[in-house]
Amino acid sequence: MPAGFGFVVTHRDGRARRGRLTTPHGQVDTPVFMPVGTRGAVKAVTHEQLEALGASIVLGNTYHLYLRPGDALIARRGGLHRFIGWDRPILTDSGGYQVFSLGDLRTIDERGARFRSHLDGSEHELTAERAVDIQARLGSDIAMVFDECLSYPATEGAARESMERTARWARRARERFEAVRAGATDVVVTNPGQAQFGIVQGGVFPALRRESAERTVAVGFEAYAIGGLSVGEPVDAMYDVVGQTTAWLPEARPRYLMGTGMPDDLVEAVARGVDLFDCVLPTRNARNGQVLTRYGRMNLRNARFAEDDRPIDAACRCYTCRRHSRAYLRHLLTVQEMTAATLNTLHNLSFYLDLMGEIRDAIEFGSFESFRQTFHRTFSRRPVSS
Amino acid sequence: MPAGFGFVVTHRDGRARRGRLTTPHGQVDTPVFMPVGTRGAVKAVTHEQLEALGASIVLGNTYHLYLRPGDALIARRGGLHRFIGWDRPILTDSGGYQVFSLGDLRTIDERGARFRSHLDGSEHELTAERAVDIQARLGSDIAMVFDECLSYPATEGAARESMERTARWARRARERFEAVRAGATDVVVTNPGQAQFGIVQGGVFPALRRESAERTVAVGFEAYAIGGLSVGEPVDAMYDVVGQTTAWLPEARPRYLMGTGMPDDLVEAVARGVDLFDCVLPTRNARNGQVLTRYGRMNLRNARFAEDDRPIDAACRCYTCRRHSRAYLRHLLTVQEMTAATLNTLHNLSFYLDLMGEIRDAIEFGSFESFRQTFHRTFSRRPVSS
Repeated sequence: MPAGFGFVVTHRDGRARRGRLTTPHGQVDTPVFMPVGTRGAVKAVTHEQLEALGASIVLGNTYHLYLRPGDALIARRGGLHRFIGWDRPILTDSGGYQVFSLGDLRTIDERGARFRSHLDGSEHELTAERAVDIQARLGSDIAMVFDECLSYPATEGAARESMERTARWARRARERFEAVRAGATDVVVTNPGQAQFGIVQGGVFPALRRESAERTVAVGFEAYAIGGLSVGEPVDAMYDVVGQTTAWLPEARPRYLMGTGMPDDLVEAVARGVDLFDCVLPTRNARNGQVLTRYGRMNLRNARFAEDDRPIDAACRCYTCRRHSRAYLRHLLTVQEMTAATLNTLHNLSFYLDLMGEIRDAIEFGSFESFRQTFHRTFSRRPVSS
Repeated sequence: MPAGFGFVVTHRDGRARRGRLTTPHGQVDTPVFMPVGTRGAVKAVTHEQLEALGASIVLGNTYHLYLRPGDALIARRGGLHRFIGWDRPILTDSGGYQVFSLGDLRTIDERGARFRSHLDGSEHELTAERAVDIQARLGSDIAMVFDECLSYPATEGAARESMERTARWARRARERFEAVRAGATDVVVTNPGQAQFGIVQGGVFPALRRESAERTVAVGFEAYAIGGLSVGEPVDAMYDVVGQTTAWLPEARPRYLMGTGMPDDLVEAVARGVDLFDCVLPTRNARNGQVLTRYGRMNLRNARFAEDDRPIDAACRCYTCRRHSRAYLRHLLTVQEMTAATLNTLHNLSFYLDLMGEIRDAIEFGSFESFRQTFHRTFSRRPVSS
């Protein structure tokens, strides 16, 4: 493992774990939710606001940062942390998910992905090796391997092919990562303590997930992610895959469920042994007026909130709930004031980060199962009515 | 004067004054700059951020709040302060400026203005009396009279006609204000301590400005504003009008220069005895990437900032300058992250509010003239090059 990176499980409660991740930019208590800062900023909030919310790590998107302002420019600025003025840990994805989402704008073969920029149509190539190099220049604390993101539904044959390719790319990515770390390339490394996480694929097929886990672990990464979920499969299928896959991953290494999900998904994934999460839902939904409460989500654009003097959630202690009413937030959404995006984002991120804090406490005190049951009795996936 | 409203001049330096305005929601040190919160929010920042910047009073727009969410709804919420969650002073304009800006969508006669909403084309009427009633429901600490906003250039004849109508409207507005305050109407009053300011018009014609000042003062308001400037006239003409008009206004009452202006305009108006200012420039320009420095304004969209690791202004202590580089801010503007609007707004408002603080200090210490000369030697109206 690179100097400066580490992970210890400090408490167990069933399959749920509480732990501490150490990175070159500080420690992260797990299970943790990582707000998504696509282009070097979590949309609608300042870093100071994120820190006040207790965000201990954020995510950056390699695809977007590679296109603008470019990884070389960021390396010249001293890396992503210095460039964006954030000195807590950062995880970068590999760009794979974004590239695969380009549809007709990309072609994929064994070498990697060739694609046209969604911005100007310019041609680019992303490979297992290039994704390593770009992230080395960005200098995130955690780099992800470049994986193939299978769409859902897929046949078992297609899922196997894709999983095997991802496994071959994982080996190439690790070799490149070690060469870059050893100084055997001309790639500028802005964070010598960067860790690299492998990604388990295999769709909803247990045998493929198991083989993917084994092959990825065999390559040897600092930690392991579960990719290719939250892509349209039934929620029970997702929970099953998560529960099976974590059992095939080493106990001593962090587990990261990529791109998921709703608050109840986080609770269920923690119950199955997951440590790290990221998702655009709390921030994206906030900008659309969808906010979360203990009881479920609420669309503040609804006319019934026009004269509602209550905060979003009376039990919430976030800035938005301490200061503003649903009526005011609905007004700001109606007149399209960008402050609405800020206030709703502060609330939703506070909800996610507080939820993770409660989960960590419950695991520490051995009461996670009771917390989980209480949570599900209260929280509904359907919009709440008051 | 209504209970809870007061003004004392505490220091004089030449014609510049330092003073203290008392309102039902607290005190305001003058000269003061009021950030513009058109629809109940200063765009791109939270109230907490405004407070941290030292904003002691903000402006709300009657026209916009009347249309959405409506003054009756705001009154049912307990008034504008409670509705928006801001408990420092608020000044509301009368809506006159916005209505006159509607062009073909409005007609004006002695009774008032009839106009179609810029939102849905619905028909509305705004009169001297209705502007009083709406602002009584909003419950701002300072209400402005409904005035006719002359466009520039205008003949002396047109300017006289308009000034005289404004003077007649001022009398009607004061009568209505006193009736509302006395409880002789069915208008809901959400702030019994509200003050009402008269507005001096008269274009760039000294004789008209003088007559307008005398007629407005004869009606008797808590304070007096200078309207109809920053509408396209040469800057020297504006300074002349300000310098003449303040001399015709009572020493013991606050003077408010409406809708102006660039930082050097504020310094010059203070030198001529003005106490209150508002302007959308620092907030609007911030969203476009135009930021202010001691040397003048700078457009952060410019490519030459792409690799500039310096803060906007090395001498500025605002959050943005303490934490972020021009390179990062330019990146956020380029990729259209709304955080760019927030960070630039924090800087520009900090610049304006700090400038007013320096002005108040200089007046207190009798060094305003020296401050003014130093300011002009450094600050340029042209864009700065580094």
